[in-house]
Amino acid sequence: MLTLYGYPLSSAAYRVRIALALKGVKVSTVNKQLRRGEHRHEDYLKINPQGFVPTLELEDGTVLTQSLAIIEWLDESHPPPPLLPIEPLARARVRSLCQLIACDIHPLNNLRVLQYLESTFGVAQAARDEWYRHWIASGFAPLEEVLGRDASRGRFCFGDQPGMADVCLVPQVYNARRYSVDLTPYPLIAAIDAACGELPAFADAAPEKQL
Amino acid sequence: MLTLYGYPLSSAAYRVRIALALKGVKVSTVNKQLRRGEHRHEDYLKINPQGFVPTLELEDGTVLTQSLAIIEWLDESHPPPPLLPIEPLARARVRSLCQLIACDIHPLNNLRVLQYLESTFGVAQAARDEWYRHWIASGFAPLEEVLGRDASRGRFCFGDQPGMADVCLVPQVYNARRYSVDLTPYPLIAAIDAACGELPAFADAAPEKQL
Repeated sequence: MLTLYGYPLSSAAYRVRIALALKGVKVSTVNKQLRRGEHRHEDYLKINPQGFVPTLELEDGTVLTQSLAIIEWLDESHPPPPLLPIEPLARARVRSLCQLIACDIHPLNNLRVLQYLESTFGVAQAARDEWYRHWIASGFAPLEEVLGRDASRGRFCFGDQPGMADVCLVPQVYNARRYSVDLTPYPLIAAIDAACGELPAFADAAPEKQL
Repeated sequence: MLTLYGYPLSSAAYRVRIALALKGVKVSTVNKQLRRGEHRHEDYLKINPQGFVPTLELEDGTVLTQSLAIIEWLDESHPPPPLLPIEPLARARVRSLCQLIACDIHPLNNLRVLQYLESTFGVAQAARDEWYRHWIASGFAPLEEVLGRDASRGRFCFGDQPGMADVCLVPQVYNARRYSVDLTPYPLIAAIDAACGELPAFADAAPEKQL
């Protein structure tokens, strides 16, 4: 059986939990308590030198890191449902939605970044929360615009089946809610999140279900 | 002919310039002067609602955004040389190297982030430079470790032909040099960067060649 090293509140691990569930792949889960620094222990750094979650370990000990790389591997090596469309331009479209979230929003709001703001720059909690919300709004506004223009959008980010962009969107919306971001300006994002929430693969991957 | 909206010093645009050159694809280039805010002009936001570079526009007006999505599209829709290996685990490995750079280093050092640190938190230049170097070092240390463990590493990040991981690595090393990061602790990264630098596709994509 595969082993997923994760953490309930990690967005990147949450993405992989959803993707695994969509593919019907069972894993054994090991949670790393990030706030206690468990991901910095020597034995975990041997597996993943970044000390990040998620890490997916195969039965032969092969280690995969980086959530989007893990999800693409899952899609390329496991039976349908597909997480990406087949046509190259459609794939580029879906990947660009994923990367808008995974490169332009999420990295700025990581725990290590918030800790740096606090410890090195002395940024107070309220201002750190504002930073957090700022990067979500900076990404969600153009994301809403892009989704609105896109004829390939359906019930989900791409068409009427959930895929890799939805896998990235739902954990980011979860974080937005955690930080009380007003989602009213983003009706398409909210509608896609709601459609995903009706599916067990998404609902069962939520952080509160991991405890 | 394709149109690439870019900026000489943008790492993400630099990646796409290298990938286009490796594939032998000619483009017409439009540079957006980020420091003058040209990417925020209304006409550009119609093309790319994020106002980021790079954007690749096809002859029929189709727009591709996000550097890694553009590069994967290039690879899937154009003849060899391939930018990713064929085998799924090898692809995951290369993509994870790309994402270590594109998700865990580069977004933290973007101009908009440095501007936020200055304008909202009043962080001075020297401390912003330290922030910049901190995230490079935090990524390069595990990257060097991962490259060192990897039997598939050759003259380049994966084997003896340049590929997508090298396309991401070289612009990040360029930024590291710009900010006087000591590369001595990263001999493998430096060696791969040097090997890439001998190839015209990499050398001709450098920022100083765009002016």
